Amino acid sequence: MKIFNIFENIKIDKQKEQFFDLIKNDNVRIEKIVSNGQSSPKGFWYEQKENEFVLLLEGFAILEFEDEEVELEKGDFLNIPAFKKHRVKHTSQQEPTIWLAVFYM
Amino acid sequence: MKIFNIFENIKIDKQKEQFFDLIKNDNVRIEKIVSNGQSSPKGFWYEQKENEFVLLLEGFAILEFEDEEVELEKGDFLNIPAFKKHRVKHTSQQEPTIWLAVFYM
Repeated sequence: MKIFNIFENIKIDKQKEQFFDLIKNDNVRIEKIVSNGQSSPKGFWYEQKENEFVLLLEGFAILEFEDEEVELEKGDFLNIPAFKKHRVKHTSQQEPTIWLAVFYM
Repeated sequence: MKIFNIFENIKIDKQKEQFFDLIKNDNVRIEKIVSNGQSSPKGFWYEQKENEFVLLLEGFAILEFEDEEVELEKGDFLNIPAFKKHRVKHTSQQEPTIWLAVFYM
């Protein structure tokens, strides 16, 4: 049985976010995301057909929706329904922000 | 948008493990589990029809399979295929062990 650690091999890349598929099939995709101060491009919204469960494991982030913003700290999680517009407004400049995202139908 | 924290309201219950469904539909169930020294009953094996992605968020545990044992520390994760027999052999006596489990088809 292969064991991995989600906090291993965290690279600090100020240029771009890093995305790792941990699990992927037709029903579900579990993704690890590492942000280092990045945010979504101005005016860009995620609006995917999957629901998304997001858990912030380390760091700090602000998620923006059309009608509100939410601050996320270690351990915070939320469920973003399919087609709900959202974007990453801010991630910590001081430390990597590590996300676990579960996309599901 | 409702935000929760996965490390909030951790009760120390030496009598029984605590299970919380965070997300549940036909394809996926995301569960938070809090163990306080519990292990699976002797001779008991989980053998469910869903695949299970498990991430240990805090604490320490030993998972047992028919042919091996694995030790899990903070941040360790693994994927247990459907129908793979497994049991919790040990969880930390010193601190709560917090698991995130994603059951998926």
